Amino acid sequence: MASASAINIDLSGATYCVLSGASQGIGRAIAVELSKHLGPKSLMLLLARNKEELAKTADLCKSDNVNIVFESMDLSKASAADMLSVIQSSLKGYNVNDFATSVIFHNVGSLGNLSVETERMDNVEEMRQYYDLNVFNVITLNTQFLKVFEEVEDRVVIVNVTSLCAIKPMSGMASYCSGKAAREMYFKVLAEEKKHIRVLNYSPGPVETSMIDYVLAETVNANLREVFTSFRSQGALLKPEITAKKCLKVLLQGKFSPGEHVDYFDDE
Amino acid sequence: MASASAINIDLSGATYCVLSGASQGIGRAIAVELSKHLGPKSLMLLLARNKEELAKTADLCKSDNVNIVFESMDLSKASAADMLSVIQSSLKGYNVNDFATSVIFHNVGSLGNLSVETERMDNVEEMRQYYDLNVFNVITLNTQFLKVFEEVEDRVVIVNVTSLCAIKPMSGMASYCSGKAAREMYFKVLAEEKKHIRVLNYSPGPVETSMIDYVLAETVNANLREVFTSFRSQGALLKPEITAKKCLKVLLQGKFSPGEHVDYFDDE
Repeated sequence: MASASAINIDLSGATYCVLSGASQGIGRAIAVELSKHLGPKSLMLLLARNKEELAKTADLCKSDNVNIVFESMDLSKASAADMLSVIQSSLKGYNVNDFATSVIFHNVGSLGNLSVETERMDNVEEMRQYYDLNVFNVITLNTQFLKVFEEVEDRVVIVNVTSLCAIKPMSGMASYCSGKAAREMYFKVLAEEKKHIRVLNYSPGPVETSMIDYVLAETVNANLREVFTSFRSQGALLKPEITAKKCLKVLLQGKFSPGEHVDYFDDE
Repeated sequence: MASASAINIDLSGATYCVLSGASQGIGRAIAVELSKHLGPKSLMLLLARNKEELAKTADLCKSDNVNIVFESMDLSKASAADMLSVIQSSLKGYNVNDFATSVIFHNVGSLGNLSVETERMDNVEEMRQYYDLNVFNVITLNTQFLKVFEEVEDRVVIVNVTSLCAIKPMSGMASYCSGKAAREMYFKVLAEEKKHIRVLNYSPGPVETSMIDYVLAETVNANLREVFTSFRSQGALLKPEITAKKCLKVLLQGKFSPGEHVDYFDDE
């Protein structure tokens, strides 16, 4: 991590949080871990498609300090207006000045079509849909969040859930790697421009989620199958709770430069 | 550059080349430089929208060794079938086995809308269009090229014209930086999977082209304007011919690992 002197991020006051992809896996684990750190009069907005699973996440986050709201939203299709409206609705009865800190976690993500070899990719419509969810609408949601909190921009914190694949190519994952690279770079540019906004690109390591089953079921790439099979057989996959704890630790310590890519396995 | 032992790339035999964005700037300069290195019975296919300017490039490339064909093609809109057809048509009377080496240069590119601040980006249609030209259709063209040369894949060489912006965020250029990061990463994944295909990500440095005028005319970012104004006032911009020479030198020496990002300013 950058040697720049750390400026702690303080969530012990009233904090507003948005989390995308909060219905399962890493998103759910981050929501739960986050809820333990939030000070009185905090507010969490959980987003994902599956309302039932979101309700379970909300239940796991229950705390006297936090008012939890959740909304079913398909972020592959939602418009900027939809996103703005869901953030504004969550804030009814609040003023943006009521919060000491406002955080957004961009956790939503997908792996793309793993059944087409990299050298055969030419379905532009499929690429567009992949980028809609993983890049374009992440940017759009982020913009709506910044719009709402514009007057208190110096209290804003942004966490992008990235991947080692954003900086290191992995066989069989061209969509995932290139999408993560694009997404991380957008946040790095934003961080470069807006130094008073704290921006972290957190890479959670290999985590035991449903994505692993998806990879093993769908990939046509032998190397990728081997990597994930061996991760699993060697017990090398992290529990979502473990990486969520690390994510919050990195965030709270604030020892990252603007937009820095910090991996679970990086030295502290 | 990687210390891996170099395996020279030999263009002194009959060579087939495709170049996108060949009507101006770096693309034109690479075409001209390339034409000097090609052995007898070589064939070049130049692609870009502007047919008149393509004709000028073709004229500048004239050589006894090289048959030059050019096609007006809008790579932001062309379909995979269009691309396949233009490559196949250029090969009429030839067999893929006639060529000792087959090279594709992905030079096409644009800067995106520089009049919207990064924190205001939320026009998904605009992002799609940007990625159509700069990422999705680059991948699609590459796939058609690989399809045609599938049976002689071990003779294939791919050069992606990338940018320092693919690995280093630059204020005011979120579309360009993230698009270049995505595009470079796709080629890195491909290179990881297909080690017998030589893949180079060449970053040409700051070059005096019409893109510079476009940046200065359009950007809303003061820092970006300052960087480019000072490049120009200090005479720090490279001539297209200079970086094209370096690109060919790097390519011919072959001292790059699969998919490596090599910058004009990197040590040799």
